[in-house]
Amino acid sequence: MGVKRDAIIKTAAMLVIGDEILSGRTQDVNVSHVAKTLTLIGIDLLEARIVADNAQAIVSAVRELSKLYDYVFTSGGIGPTHDDITADAIAQAFNVEIDHDPRAIALLEAHYANSNLELNSARLRMARIPIGAELIPNPVSSAPGFQLHNVYVMAGVPRIFQAMMSEVLPTLESGDRIESRTIDAGLPEGQIANQLGEIQLQHAGTMIGSYPYVDGTNISTRIVIRSRDITALSQAVVDVEQMITELNIKIPIQGCENHD
Amino acid sequence: MGVKRDAIIKTAAMLVIGDEILSGRTQDVNVSHVAKTLTLIGIDLLEARIVADNAQAIVSAVRELSKLYDYVFTSGGIGPTHDDITADAIAQAFNVEIDHDPRAIALLEAHYANSNLELNSARLRMARIPIGAELIPNPVSSAPGFQLHNVYVMAGVPRIFQAMMSEVLPTLESGDRIESRTIDAGLPEGQIANQLGEIQLQHAGTMIGSYPYVDGTNISTRIVIRSRDITALSQAVVDVEQMITELNIKIPIQGCENHD
Repeated sequence: MGVKRDAIIKTAAMLVIGDEILSGRTQDVNVSHVAKTLTLIGIDLLEARIVADNAQAIVSAVRELSKLYDYVFTSGGIGPTHDDITADAIAQAFNVEIDHDPRAIALLEAHYANSNLELNSARLRMARIPIGAELIPNPVSSAPGFQLHNVYVMAGVPRIFQAMMSEVLPTLESGDRIESRTIDAGLPEGQIANQLGEIQLQHAGTMIGSYPYVDGTNISTRIVIRSRDITALSQAVVDVEQMITELNIKIPIQGCENHD
Repeated sequence: MGVKRDAIIKTAAMLVIGDEILSGRTQDVNVSHVAKTLTLIGIDLLEARIVADNAQAIVSAVRELSKLYDYVFTSGGIGPTHDDITADAIAQAFNVEIDHDPRAIALLEAHYANSNLELNSARLRMARIPIGAELIPNPVSSAPGFQLHNVYVMAGVPRIFQAMMSEVLPTLESGDRIESRTIDAGLPEGQIANQLGEIQLQHAGTMIGSYPYVDGTNISTRIVIRSRDITALSQAVVDVEQMITELNIKIPIQGCENHD
Protein backbone atom coordinates (compact mmCIF):
# COMPACT_ATOMS: atom_id res chain seq x y z
CA MET A 1 0.00 0.00 0.00
CA GLY A 2 1.20 3.50 -0.83
CA VAL A 3 1.41 6.45 1.51
CA LYS A 4 -2.09 7.77 2.19
CA ARG A 5 -2.46 11.22 0.60
CA ASP A 6 -4.68 13.99 1.90
CA ALA A 7 -8.15 14.06 0.37
CA ILE A 8 -8.72 16.62 -2.36
CA ILE A 9 -11.72 18.71 -1.37
CA LYS A 10 -13.50 21.08 -3.73
CA THR A 11 -16.35 23.23 -2.46
CA ALA A 12 -19.20 25.13 -4.04
CA ALA A 13 -22.16 27.38 -3.31
CA MET A 14 -25.32 27.99 -5.29
CA LEU A 15 -27.01 31.38 -5.58
CA VAL A 16 -30.59 31.43 -6.83
CA ILE A 17 -31.71 34.88 -7.97
CA GLY A 18 -35.40 35.59 -8.29
CA ASP A 19 -38.35 37.32 -6.60
CA GLU A 20 -40.60 34.54 -7.90
CA ILE A 21 -38.94 31.97 -5.63
CA LEU A 22 -39.15 34.19 -2.52
CA SER A 23 -42.81 35.05 -3.12
CA GLY A 24 -43.62 31.35 -3.39
CA ARG A 25 -44.90 31.61 -6.96
CA THR A 26 -42.20 29.25 -8.27
CA GLN A 27 -40.65 26.21 -6.60
CA ASP A 28 -36.87 26.22 -7.09
CA VAL A 29 -35.46 23.01 -8.54
CA ASN A 30 -32.03 24.27 -9.62
CA VAL A 31 -30.42 23.84 -6.18
CA SER A 32 -31.39 20.19 -6.19
CA HIS A 33 -30.00 19.72 -9.71
CA VAL A 34 -26.66 21.33 -8.79
CA ALA A 35 -26.53 19.31 -5.56
CA LYS A 36 -26.98 16.01 -7.39
CA THR A 37 -24.55 16.70 -10.24
CA LEU A 38 -21.80 18.12 -8.00
CA THR A 39 -22.07 15.17 -5.59
CA LEU A 40 -21.50 12.83 -8.56
CA ILE A 41 -18.31 14.55 -9.72
CA GLY A 42 -16.76 15.14 -6.29
CA ILE A 43 -17.52 18.77 -5.48
CA ASP A 44 -19.17 19.49 -2.12
CA LEU A 45 -22.11 21.88 -2.26
CA LEU A 46 -21.80 23.54 1.16
CA GLU A 47 -24.32 26.36 0.92
CA ALA A 48 -27.21 27.66 -1.17
CA ARG A 49 -28.80 31.08 -1.01
CA ILE A 50 -31.89 32.55 -2.60
CA VAL A 51 -32.01 36.33 -3.01
CA ALA A 52 -34.40 38.74 -4.74
CA ASP A 53 -33.82 40.55 -8.05
CA ASN A 54 -32.03 43.25 -6.09
CA ALA A 55 -28.58 44.50 -7.13
CA GLN A 56 -27.27 45.04 -3.62
CA ALA A 57 -28.41 41.60 -2.46
CA ILE A 58 -26.79 39.91 -5.46
CA VAL A 59 -23.52 41.85 -5.22
CA SER A 60 -23.17 41.18 -1.53
CA ALA A 61 -23.95 37.44 -1.85
CA VAL A 62 -21.60 36.97 -4.83
CA ARG A 63 -18.71 38.71 -3.09
CA GLU A 64 -19.15 36.67 0.06
CA LEU A 65 -19.70 33.28 -1.58
CA SER A 66 -16.93 33.64 -4.17
CA LYS A 67 -14.44 34.18 -1.34
CA LEU A 68 -15.71 31.29 0.77
CA TYR A 69 -15.96 28.53 -1.85
CA ASP A 70 -14.05 27.19 -4.87
CA TYR A 71 -17.04 27.56 -7.19
CA VAL A 72 -20.24 29.61 -7.19
CA PHE A 73 -23.14 28.78 -9.51
CA THR A 74 -25.95 31.26 -10.04
CA SER A 75 -29.36 30.82 -11.68
CA GLY A 76 -31.78 33.48 -12.85
CA GLY A 77 -31.90 37.08 -13.98
CA ILE A 78 -30.15 36.93 -17.39
CA GLY A 79 -33.16 37.34 -19.70
CA PRO A 80 -34.18 40.29 -21.90
CA THR A 81 -36.49 42.16 -19.49
CA HIS A 82 -35.80 45.10 -17.15
CA ASP A 83 -35.99 42.89 -14.06
CA ASP A 84 -33.04 40.78 -15.29
CA ILE A 85 -30.14 42.49 -13.52
CA THR A 86 -27.80 39.61 -12.72
CA ALA A 87 -25.11 40.37 -15.34
CA ASP A 88 -24.80 43.97 -14.18
CA ALA A 89 -24.69 42.90 -10.55
CA ILE A 90 -21.92 40.38 -11.22
CA ALA A 91 -19.87 43.05 -13.03
CA GLN A 92 -20.38 45.33 -10.04
CA ALA A 93 -19.42 42.57 -7.59
CA PHE A 94 -16.02 42.22 -9.31
CA ASN A 95 -15.63 45.94 -10.17
CA VAL A 96 -15.47 45.40 -13.94
CA GLU A 97 -17.32 47.08 -16.80
CA ILE A 98 -20.09 45.41 -18.76
CA ASP A 99 -20.89 45.77 -22.46
CA HIS A 100 -22.43 44.01 -25.45
CA ASP A 101 -20.03 41.15 -26.15
CA PRO A 102 -19.23 40.51 -29.87
CA ARG A 103 -19.13 36.73 -29.31
CA ALA A 104 -22.53 36.80 -27.65
CA ILE A 105 -23.97 39.08 -30.34
CA ALA A 106 -22.79 36.63 -33.00
CA LEU A 107 -24.55 33.76 -31.20
CA LEU A 108 -27.79 35.73 -30.97
CA GLU A 109 -27.58 36.89 -34.60
CA ALA A 110 -27.16 33.33 -35.81
CA HIS A 111 -30.03 32.14 -33.63
CA TYR A 112 -32.52 34.84 -34.60
CA ALA A 113 -31.55 34.67 -38.30
CA ASN A 114 -32.86 31.08 -38.17
CA SER A 115 -36.11 32.07 -36.52
CA ASN A 116 -39.00 34.34 -37.38
CA LEU A 117 -38.18 36.48 -34.36
CA GLU A 118 -36.47 39.84 -34.51
CA LEU A 119 -33.18 40.48 -32.69
CA ASN A 120 -34.45 43.70 -31.11
CA SER A 121 -32.67 45.85 -28.53
CA ALA A 122 -34.31 43.97 -25.64
CA ARG A 123 -33.01 40.64 -26.91
CA LEU A 124 -29.59 42.23 -27.49
CA ARG A 125 -29.49 42.94 -23.73
CA MET A 126 -28.81 39.21 -23.40
CA ALA A 127 -25.42 39.85 -25.08
CA ARG A 128 -24.33 42.16 -22.26
CA ILE A 129 -21.44 40.34 -20.57
CA PRO A 130 -18.96 41.60 -17.95
CA ILE A 131 -15.53 42.38 -19.45
CA GLY A 132 -13.16 39.46 -19.00
CA ALA A 133 -15.84 36.79 -18.67
CA GLU A 134 -15.90 33.53 -20.64
CA LEU A 135 -19.17 32.55 -22.29
CA ILE A 136 -21.13 29.47 -21.25
CA PRO A 137 -22.87 27.95 -24.29
CA ASN A 138 -26.65 27.66 -24.26
CA PRO A 139 -27.61 24.72 -26.49
CA VAL A 140 -31.33 25.35 -25.90
CA SER A 141 -31.82 28.96 -26.91
CA SER A 142 -28.38 30.44 -27.71
CA ALA A 143 -28.26 33.41 -25.33
CA PRO A 144 -25.16 32.48 -23.32
CA GLY A 145 -24.35 32.40 -19.64
CA PHE A 146 -20.88 33.39 -18.53
CA GLN A 147 -18.05 32.63 -16.12
CA LEU A 148 -16.21 35.42 -14.30
CA HIS A 149 -13.48 34.28 -11.89
CA ASN A 150 -15.02 31.39 -9.95
CA VAL A 151 -18.64 32.42 -10.57
CA TYR A 152 -20.77 30.65 -13.20
CA VAL A 153 -23.81 32.66 -14.22
CA MET A 154 -26.67 30.71 -15.79
CA ALA A 155 -30.35 31.03 -16.74
CA GLY A 156 -33.18 30.38 -14.29
CA VAL A 157 -35.42 28.27 -16.53
CA PRO A 158 -34.55 24.73 -15.36
CA ARG A 159 -34.18 23.22 -18.85
CA ILE A 160 -31.71 25.94 -19.87
CA PHE A 161 -29.97 25.94 -16.49
CA GLN A 162 -29.38 22.20 -16.75
CA ALA A 163 -28.09 22.46 -20.33
CA MET A 164 -25.62 25.16 -19.24
CA MET A 165 -24.49 23.08 -16.24
CA SER A 166 -23.78 20.20 -18.62
CA GLU A 167 -21.46 22.52 -20.55
CA VAL A 168 -19.75 23.69 -17.35
CA LEU A 169 -19.28 20.37 -15.55
CA PRO A 170 -16.42 18.97 -17.71
CA THR A 171 -14.40 22.17 -17.13
CA LEU A 172 -14.46 21.95 -13.32
CA GLU A 173 -11.68 20.53 -11.16
CA SER A 174 -13.14 17.67 -9.16
CA GLY A 175 -12.16 16.58 -5.69
CA ASP A 176 -12.33 13.16 -4.10
CA ARG A 177 -15.93 12.10 -4.26
CA ILE A 178 -17.96 11.52 -1.11
CA GLU A 179 -19.33 7.99 -1.43
CA SER A 180 -22.51 7.05 0.39
CA ARG A 181 -24.51 4.01 1.44
CA THR A 182 -28.13 4.13 2.52
CA ILE A 183 -29.55 1.60 4.97
CA ASP A 184 -33.19 1.36 5.93
CA ALA A 185 -33.39 0.80 9.67
CA GLY A 186 -36.98 -0.44 9.74
CA LEU A 187 -37.30 1.40 13.07
CA PRO A 188 -38.17 4.95 14.15
CA GLU A 189 -35.32 7.38 14.81
CA GLY A 190 -35.74 7.49 18.59
CA GLN A 191 -35.24 3.72 18.71
CA ILE A 192 -31.82 3.76 17.04
CA ALA A 193 -30.50 7.19 18.03
CA ASN A 194 -28.33 6.25 21.01
CA GLN A 195 -26.54 3.36 19.32
CA LEU A 196 -26.17 5.30 16.08
CA GLY A 197 -24.50 8.14 17.98
CA GLU A 198 -22.04 5.63 19.47
CA ILE A 199 -21.23 4.28 16.00
CA GLN A 200 -20.66 7.82 14.70
CA LEU A 201 -18.14 8.40 17.52
CA GLN A 202 -16.30 5.18 16.61
CA HIS A 203 -16.16 6.11 12.90
CA ALA A 204 -14.89 9.68 12.86
CA GLY A 205 -13.89 9.41 9.20
CA THR A 206 -17.53 9.06 8.18
CA MET A 207 -20.60 11.28 8.39
CA ILE A 208 -23.69 9.39 9.52
CA GLY A 209 -27.05 11.04 8.87
CA SER A 210 -30.45 9.88 10.05
CA TYR A 211 -33.56 10.65 7.97
CA PRO A 212 -37.00 9.61 9.18
CA TYR A 213 -39.78 8.84 6.74
CA VAL A 214 -43.37 7.70 6.86
CA ASP A 215 -44.60 5.00 4.50
CA GLY A 216 -48.34 4.67 5.12
CA THR A 217 -48.56 4.03 8.86
CA ASN A 218 -45.03 2.65 9.01
CA ILE A 219 -42.48 5.04 10.55
CA SER A 220 -38.92 4.22 9.66
CA THR A 221 -35.50 5.78 9.23
CA ARG A 222 -33.02 5.87 6.40
CA ILE A 223 -29.44 5.95 7.65
CA VAL A 224 -27.02 7.53 5.20
CA ILE A 225 -23.31 6.89 5.76
CA ARG A 226 -20.89 9.07 3.80
CA SER A 227 -17.12 9.25 3.44
CA ARG A 228 -14.37 9.97 0.95
CA ASP A 229 -12.58 6.91 2.38
CA ILE A 230 -14.19 3.74 1.03
CA THR A 231 -12.59 1.54 3.69
CA ALA A 232 -13.85 3.74 6.51
CA LEU A 233 -17.26 3.76 4.83
CA SER A 234 -17.43 -0.04 4.63
CA GLN A 235 -16.42 -0.45 8.26
CA ALA A 236 -19.15 1.93 9.43
CA VAL A 237 -21.72 0.16 7.23
CA VAL A 238 -20.87 -3.17 8.89
CA ASP A 239 -21.44 -1.71 12.36
CA VAL A 240 -24.70 0.00 11.39
CA GLU A 241 -26.03 -3.17 9.81
CA GLN A 242 -25.13 -5.19 12.89
CA MET A 243 -26.84 -2.64 15.14
CA ILE A 244 -30.01 -2.83 13.06
CA THR A 245 -30.06 -6.60 13.06
CA GLU A 246 -29.76 -6.65 16.84
CA LEU A 247 -32.41 -3.97 17.38
CA ASN A 248 -34.83 -5.61 14.96
CA ILE A 249 -34.77 -8.82 16.96
CA LYS A 250 -37.20 -6.97 19.18
CA ILE A 251 -40.47 -6.61 17.25
CA PRO A 252 -40.48 -3.18 15.52
CA ILE A 253 -42.74 -0.78 17.38
CA GLN A 254 -44.98 1.72 15.59
CA GLY A 255 -45.79 5.24 16.77
CA CYS A 256 -45.58 8.90 16.00
CA GLU A 257 -42.60 10.94 17.10
CA ASN A 258 -40.83 14.10 16.12
CA HIS A 259 -38.10 13.84 13.55
CA ASP A 260 -35.18 15.73 12.20
CA MET B 1 -58.88 61.23 1.94
CA GLY B 2 -56.63 61.05 4.97
CA VAL B 3 -52.88 61.70 5.05
CA LYS B 4 -51.04 58.84 3.38
CA ARG B 5 -48.98 56.98 5.99
CA ASP B 6 -45.71 55.21 5.32
CA ALA B 7 -46.08 51.54 4.48
CA ILE B 8 -45.36 49.10 7.30
CA ILE B 9 -42.74 46.66 6.08
CA LYS B 10 -41.83 43.45 7.89
CA THR B 11 -39.02 41.29 6.60
CA ALA B 12 -37.96 37.69 7.06
CA ALA B 13 -35.34 35.12 6.12
CA MET B 14 -35.55 31.36 6.03
CA LEU B 15 -32.69 29.06 7.04
CA VAL B 16 -32.88 25.43 5.94
CA ILE B 17 -30.51 23.17 7.85
CA GLY B 18 -29.62 19.79 6.42
CA ASP B 19 -26.93 17.82 4.59
CA GLU B 20 -29.68 15.92 2.78
CA ILE B 21 -30.76 19.02 0.86
CA LEU B 22 -27.20 19.97 -0.16
CA SER B 23 -26.37 16.43 -1.32
CA GLY B 24 -29.50 16.43 -3.50
CA ARG B 25 -31.06 13.47 -1.71
CA THR B 26 -34.04 15.56 -0.60
CA GLN B 27 -35.85 18.38 -2.41
CA ASP B 28 -36.56 21.24 -0.02
CA VAL B 29 -40.20 22.36 0.08
CA ASN B 30 -40.16 24.37 3.31
CA VAL B 31 -38.83 27.57 1.69
CA SER B 32 -41.74 27.57 -0.72
CA HIS B 33 -44.22 27.02 2.12
CA VAL B 34 -42.79 29.89 4.16
CA ALA B 35 -42.72 32.11 1.06
CA LYS B 36 -46.40 31.51 0.33
CA THR B 37 -47.66 31.89 3.88
CA LEU B 38 -45.62 35.03 4.65
CA THR B 39 -46.72 36.68 1.40
CA LEU B 40 -50.34 36.14 2.46
CA ILE B 41 -49.94 37.81 5.86
CA GLY B 42 -47.77 40.72 4.74
CA ILE B 43 -44.23 39.72 5.66
CA ASP B 44 -41.59 39.94 2.91
CA LEU B 45 -39.32 36.90 2.63
CA LEU B 46 -36.12 38.56 1.39
CA GLU B 47 -33.62 35.72 1.62
CA ALA B 48 -33.32 31.98 2.10
CA ARG B 49 -30.22 29.99 2.90
CA ILE B 50 -29.48 26.30 3.01
CA VAL B 51 -26.57 25.16 5.17
CA ALA B 52 -25.22 21.77 6.24
CA ASP B 53 -25.60 20.14 9.68
CA ASN B 54 -22.50 22.03 10.75
CA ALA B 55 -22.46 24.08 13.97
CA GLN B 56 -20.23 26.84 12.64
CA ALA B 57 -22.32 27.27 9.48
CA ILE B 58 -25.57 27.42 11.47
CA VAL B 59 -24.21 29.84 14.11
CA SER B 60 -22.81 32.18 11.50
CA ALA B 61 -25.98 32.20 9.36
CA VAL B 62 -28.30 32.70 12.37
CA ARG B 63 -26.24 35.60 13.71
CA GLU B 64 -26.16 37.31 10.32
CA LEU B 65 -29.80 36.75 9.36
CA SER B 66 -31.25 37.64 12.78
CA LYS B 67 -29.55 41.04 12.55
CA LEU B 68 -30.66 41.72 8.97
CA TYR B 69 -34.34 40.74 9.14
CA ASP B 70 -37.32 41.08 11.50
CA TYR B 71 -37.92 37.33 11.58
CA VAL B 72 -35.84 34.22 10.88
CA PHE B 73 -37.44 30.80 10.42
CA THR B 74 -35.34 27.66 10.51
CA SER B 75 -36.19 24.10 9.50
CA GLY B 76 -34.33 20.91 10.31
CA GLY B 77 -31.95 19.44 12.86
CA ILE B 78 -34.14 19.17 15.99
CA GLY B 79 -34.70 15.41 16.06
CA PRO B 80 -33.33 12.78 18.49
CA THR B 81 -30.19 11.68 16.62
CA HIS B 82 -26.56 12.81 16.97
CA ASP B 83 -26.69 14.72 13.66
CA ASP B 84 -29.46 17.01 14.99
CA ILE B 85 -27.43 19.94 16.29
CA THR B 86 -29.65 22.92 15.56
CA ALA B 87 -30.80 23.64 19.15
CA ASP B 88 -27.20 23.71 20.41
CA ALA B 89 -26.11 25.90 17.51
CA ILE B 90 -28.92 28.41 18.18
CA ALA B 91 -27.93 28.58 21.86
CA GLN B 92 -24.35 29.20 20.77
CA ALA B 93 -25.41 31.87 18.26
CA PHE B 94 -27.04 33.86 21.08
CA ASN B 95 -24.48 32.93 23.77
CA VAL B 96 -27.01 31.27 26.06
CA GLU B 97 -26.96 27.89 27.81
CA ILE B 98 -29.07 24.94 26.73
CA ASP B 99 -30.70 22.31 28.93
CA HIS B 100 -33.59 19.87 29.16
CA ASP B 101 -36.65 22.12 29.47
CA PRO B 102 -39.29 21.01 32.03
CA ARG B 103 -42.14 22.21 29.76
CA ALA B 104 -40.75 20.22 26.84
CA ILE B 105 -40.15 17.15 29.02
CA ALA B 106 -43.79 17.31 30.17
CA LEU B 107 -44.97 17.39 26.55
CA LEU B 108 -42.82 14.40 25.64
CA GLU B 109 -43.87 12.45 28.75
CA ALA B 110 -47.54 12.97 27.94
CA HIS B 111 -46.97 11.96 24.32
CA TYR B 112 -44.97 8.81 24.99
CA ALA B 113 -47.26 7.74 27.88
CA ASN B 114 -50.02 7.52 25.25
CA SER B 115 -47.90 5.46 22.86
CA ASN B 116 -46.14 2.12 23.05
CA LEU B 117 -42.82 3.89 22.59
CA GLU B 118 -40.32 4.50 25.35
CA LEU B 119 -39.18 8.03 26.27
CA ASN B 120 -35.50 7.07 26.21
CA SER B 121 -32.52 9.40 26.57
CA ALA B 122 -32.31 9.94 22.79
CA ARG B 123 -35.92 11.10 22.63
CA LEU B 124 -35.32 13.27 25.71
CA ARG B 125 -32.71 15.13 23.64
CA MET B 126 -35.69 16.70 21.85
CA ALA B 127 -36.50 18.49 25.14
CA ARG B 128 -33.17 20.34 25.07
CA ILE B 129 -34.11 24.00 24.59
CA PRO B 130 -31.93 27.14 24.86
CA ILE B 131 -32.51 29.03 28.12
CA GLY B 132 -34.99 31.88 27.62
CA ALA B 133 -36.70 30.39 24.56
CA GLU B 134 -40.45 30.06 24.18
CA LEU B 135 -41.78 26.70 22.97
CA ILE B 136 -43.52 26.28 19.61
CA PRO B 137 -46.24 23.60 19.90
CA ASN B 138 -45.99 20.55 17.66
CA PRO B 139 -49.54 19.25 17.09
CA VAL B 140 -48.25 16.34 14.99
CA SER B 141 -45.74 14.63 17.24
CA SER B 142 -45.40 16.75 20.43
CA ALA B 143 -41.62 17.42 20.46
CA PRO B 144 -41.67 21.23 20.34
CA GLY B 145 -39.83 23.80 18.30
CA PHE B 146 -38.82 27.04 19.97
CA GLN B 147 -38.47 30.77 19.53
CA LEU B 148 -35.39 32.63 20.77
CA HIS B 149 -35.34 36.37 20.09
CA ASN B 150 -36.50 36.73 16.47
CA VAL B 151 -35.54 33.19 15.44
CA TYR B 152 -38.20 30.46 15.11
CA VAL B 153 -36.72 26.97 15.15
CA MET B 154 -38.84 24.23 13.63
CA ALA B 155 -38.66 20.62 12.41
CA GLY B 156 -37.52 19.70 8.90
CA VAL B 157 -40.21 17.14 8.06
CA PRO B 158 -42.62 19.23 5.95
CA ARG B 159 -45.81 18.07 7.67
CA ILE B 160 -44.42 18.98 11.10
CA PHE B 161 -42.79 22.17 9.82
CA GLN B 162 -46.10 23.34 8.38
CA ALA B 163 -47.99 22.52 11.58
CA MET B 164 -45.46 24.52 13.61
CA MET B 165 -45.67 27.46 11.17
CA SER B 166 -49.45 27.46 11.65
CA GLU B 167 -48.86 27.88 15.39
CA VAL B 168 -46.35 30.69 14.83
CA LEU B 169 -48.18 32.74 12.17
CA PRO B 170 -50.88 34.30 14.44
CA THR B 171 -48.15 35.58 16.81
CA LEU B 172 -46.23 37.52 14.13
CA GLU B 173 -46.56 41.25 13.49
CA SER B 174 -47.67 41.70 9.91
CA GLY B 175 -46.80 44.54 7.60
CA ASP B 176 -48.75 45.97 4.70
CA ARG B 177 -49.28 43.12 2.30
CA ILE B 178 -47.79 43.20 -1.18
CA GLU B 179 -50.72 42.67 -3.53
CA SER B 180 -50.11 41.17 -6.94
CA ARG B 181 -51.81 40.72 -10.29
CA THR B 182 -50.67 38.25 -12.93
CA ILE B 183 -51.27 38.90 -16.62
CA ASP B 184 -50.50 36.41 -19.37
CA ALA B 185 -48.89 38.30 -22.25
CA GLY B 186 -49.46 35.64 -24.90
CA LEU B 187 -46.07 36.68 -26.32
CA PRO B 188 -42.44 35.73 -25.68
CA GLU B 189 -40.39 37.93 -23.31
CA GLY B 190 -38.21 39.50 -25.99
CA GLN B 191 -41.33 40.80 -27.72
CA ILE B 192 -42.61 42.75 -24.72
CA ALA B 193 -39.38 43.61 -22.91
CA ASN B 194 -38.82 47.16 -24.18
CA GLN B 195 -42.36 48.39 -23.58
CA LEU B 196 -42.55 46.60 -20.24
CA GLY B 197 -39.36 48.34 -19.11
CA GLU B 198 -40.94 51.70 -20.03
CA ILE B 199 -44.03 50.88 -18.00
CA GLN B 200 -41.88 49.91 -15.01
CA LEU B 201 -40.16 53.33 -15.20
CA GLN B 202 -43.55 55.07 -15.24
CA HIS B 203 -44.81 53.08 -12.24
CA ALA B 204 -42.04 53.33 -9.68
CA GLY B 205 -44.39 52.36 -6.85
CA THR B 206 -44.80 48.88 -8.34
CA MET B 207 -42.47 45.94 -9.02
CA ILE B 208 -43.05 44.39 -12.42
CA GLY B 209 -41.62 40.93 -12.99
CA SER B 210 -41.52 38.96 -16.22
CA TYR B 211 -41.65 35.16 -16.14
CA PRO B 212 -41.43 33.15 -19.36
CA TYR B 213 -43.06 29.75 -19.64
CA VAL B 214 -43.51 27.08 -22.27
CA ASP B 215 -46.89 25.43 -22.79
CA GLY B 216 -46.41 22.73 -25.40
CA THR B 217 -44.86 24.61 -28.30
CA ASN B 218 -46.34 27.92 -27.19
CA ILE B 219 -43.82 30.30 -25.59
CA SER B 220 -45.40 32.98 -23.48
CA THR B 221 -44.75 35.26 -20.54
CA ARG B 222 -46.52 35.84 -17.26
CA ILE B 223 -46.21 39.41 -16.10
CA VAL B 224 -46.53 39.82 -12.34
CA ILE B 225 -47.22 43.32 -11.02
CA ARG B 226 -46.77 43.82 -7.28
CA SER B 227 -47.28 46.71 -4.91
CA ARG B 228 -48.38 47.56 -1.37
CA ASP B 229 -50.36 50.46 -2.90
CA ILE B 230 -53.51 49.13 -4.53
CA THR B 231 -54.07 52.32 -6.55
CA ALA B 232 -50.56 52.24 -7.99
CA LEU B 233 -51.05 48.55 -8.73
CA SER B 234 -54.29 49.13 -10.63
CA GLN B 235 -52.77 51.92 -12.70
CA ALA B 236 -49.82 49.74 -13.75
CA VAL B 237 -52.18 46.87 -14.59
CA VAL B 238 -54.15 49.15 -16.94
CA ASP B 239 -50.97 50.15 -18.78
CA VAL B 240 -49.67 46.57 -19.05
CA GLU B 241 -53.02 45.35 -20.36
CA GLN B 242 -53.11 48.12 -22.95
CA MET B 243 -49.57 47.30 -24.07
CA ILE B 244 -50.46 43.64 -24.50
CA THR B 245 -53.60 44.43 -26.47
CA GLU B 246 -51.61 46.64 -28.85
CA LEU B 247 -48.75 44.12 -29.26
CA ASN B 248 -51.14 41.23 -29.84
CA ILE B 249 -52.73 43.03 -32.77
CA LYS B 250 -49.69 41.76 -34.62
CA ILE B 251 -50.03 37.96 -34.93
CA PRO B 252 -48.15 36.35 -32.03
CA ILE B 253 -44.89 34.87 -33.27
CA GLN B 254 -43.54 31.56 -31.97
CA GLY B 255 -39.90 30.74 -31.41
CA CYS B 256 -37.32 29.76 -28.87
CA GLU B 257 -35.41 32.35 -26.93
CA ASN B 258 -33.53 32.58 -23.71
CA HIS B 259 -35.44 33.56 -20.62
CA ASP B 260 -34.92 34.90 -17.20
